[in-house]
Amino acid sequence: MENKKPVIAMTMGDPSGIGPEIILKTLQDPSVYKKCRPFVIGHASVLKKTALNLGISVRIRKLSDLSAIRPESGLLFLMEPDTSSVKLSPGVPSAEGGKAAGRYIETGARLALSGKIDAITTAPINKETLKNAGYPYPGHTEFFAALSKTEDYGMMLAGGPFRIIFTTIHEPIARIAPLIKKEAVLKTIRLLNREMNRLFGIPRPLIGIASLNPHGGENGLFGNEEQNEILPAVQTAREEGIQISGPLSPDALFHKAYHREYDAVVVMYHDQGMIPLKMIAFKRSVNITLGLPFIRTSVDHGSAYDIAGKGIADPSSLKEALSLAAKLSKMKKK
Amino acid sequence: MENKKPVIAMTMGDPSGIGPEIILKTLQDPSVYKKCRPFVIGHASVLKKTALNLGISVRIRKLSDLSAIRPESGLLFLMEPDTSSVKLSPGVPSAEGGKAAGRYIETGARLALSGKIDAITTAPINKETLKNAGYPYPGHTEFFAALSKTEDYGMMLAGGPFRIIFTTIHEPIARIAPLIKKEAVLKTIRLLNREMNRLFGIPRPLIGIASLNPHGGENGLFGNEEQNEILPAVQTAREEGIQISGPLSPDALFHKAYHREYDAVVVMYHDQGMIPLKMIAFKRSVNITLGLPFIRTSVDHGSAYDIAGKGIADPSSLKEALSLAAKLSKMKKK
Repeated sequence: MENKKPVIAMTMGDPSGIGPEIILKTLQDPSVYKKCRPFVIGHASVLKKTALNLGISVRIRKLSDLSAIRPESGLLFLMEPDTSSVKLSPGVPSAEGGKAAGRYIETGARLALSGKIDAITTAPINKETLKNAGYPYPGHTEFFAALSKTEDYGMMLAGGPFRIIFTTIHEPIARIAPLIKKEAVLKTIRLLNREMNRLFGIPRPLIGIASLNPHGGENGLFGNEEQNEILPAVQTAREEGIQISGPLSPDALFHKAYHREYDAVVVMYHDQGMIPLKMIAFKRSVNITLGLPFIRTSVDHGSAYDIAGKGIADPSSLKEALSLAAKLSKMKKK
Repeated sequence: MENKKPVIAMTMGDPSGIGPEIILKTLQDPSVYKKCRPFVIGHASVLKKTALNLGISVRIRKLSDLSAIRPESGLLFLMEPDTSSVKLSPGVPSAEGGKAAGRYIETGARLALSGKIDAITTAPINKETLKNAGYPYPGHTEFFAALSKTEDYGMMLAGGPFRIIFTTIHEPIARIAPLIKKEAVLKTIRLLNREMNRLFGIPRPLIGIASLNPHGGENGLFGNEEQNEILPAVQTAREEGIQISGPLSPDALFHKAYHREYDAVVVMYHDQGMIPLKMIAFKRSVNITLGLPFIRTSVDHGSAYDIAGKGIADPSSLKEALSLAAKLSKMKKK
């Protein structure tokens, strides 16, 4: 029985952020071990120091063999990516921290790609320190896509009544409209439809899609992207048998989504999805990368240097992320 | 006692929309008359036909003298703007309907400006039919501003835990960023601060303000409007003694606003405020024009031609709008 529980790697994230703290707090919760066999990819020195500061009693056991992982509270199984020590202070961003975070991710991806683990759950990184360490990725999503040579991938956030996929992600408002093209929208719809089946076990999901502009563009009065790009993408998707409703005025769409009228929704930009999601499910939502050859979930927040080392970081989102990774792993095995 | 209840004009809106129906339904509710003395500016023929269709029993009494209005359920006091009859069908937009809607608004504004009534509550109009009738206004807000020669005005939506003022309103996403200028933002903040005191009786409101871009622009990585325009406006406002927090990442701001951390919030564009508001307070929120020399509230939805005449229109938002108009009128008298 024990050995059937999915093995999940938790990458420690930026060592100077809240990653080590929320990982330790998460692994203090006995309910975690009912769902999976977790282990950490990180540095023992950082975890030990953090545990000491927080007054958390934990035994760290370095892993030689993944099959040795037991789901046992108080026992933290650890894989160190290399022997170099890291000398870091909580709350102080550094390229060294970015380098360590990058190595955790590379190690996790290698294990997942070789089928040795069931899923990866990631603690937060910082794109600035990652960049300074020579990793040119804006975030985990693009990093894992590159490591697994995945071209067709996307970011989903799940929380409360919502599963949301983003057509564009980290773009200034001024740059969004030119990116809303039929092909990009269609690619997003297809990926969502496919992954709702493959990952979530929902074969014919009902998808809602948001317009870009207020009131759905109101027949071109407030923009033409609906008529010229989104609607043609929706029509092609329907011809392919995808169940999709819209494009709808974003405020109307989220009223319906809030009342669980869709299995998932497609939004056009970051805040269109993040505002409703975080409003009601802040620190309880999970980031999932769609399209990867392995399962990857993550927290819904950043490395929060401002509160690192203070003992006040909330592990809720990491627990949710680990729990969802376990659930998706079990569904995959069936 | 009776005569102290505020006198509120309800404009019937587009006669072919759901305005007549939701007005009749609202005035069937006895609780309305505990709060105010309402009367309708509209056409008797349309109201009678609608009442007949809906099986609502109502006595319509044409007003000669405003002091004759009694708060009495089942008795509808009516002012007809002119004697021309309107021949209209529910659900069929027409310039004639737009013309009638425009006259109701003009009549209401005249009465309010001369101090004969306490407030106006408006049923929905349609900007297309209004335009075809020769009224060049995108909505009630601009129409009332022009009639009262008000230059400094703004749109607020109130519902659930939110009071939201919009820096820009009906703009395509592609056109928003260039409109986010220090002066426009500062004007919006000042108007909100002033009106929170004058209209809502909150002398030093705590205001939250949203950034334009995701993550507050993340130090220029996702846009510069925060540093160049919004923050300077906030700084000037603070120097003037206004209590304002931000600019904050919009998702974080609405999480706080949802938990009632602010008296009111400033948003940069339509959907930034409408998505969170309508998600939880759809058909229960109220539109208030700030800056006018009289009180004006409105429904949070359009004229809904698609369901006009079917008897299924929901009067909730109109009831809320009337109720808020009564409340604000009483506060003003104090």
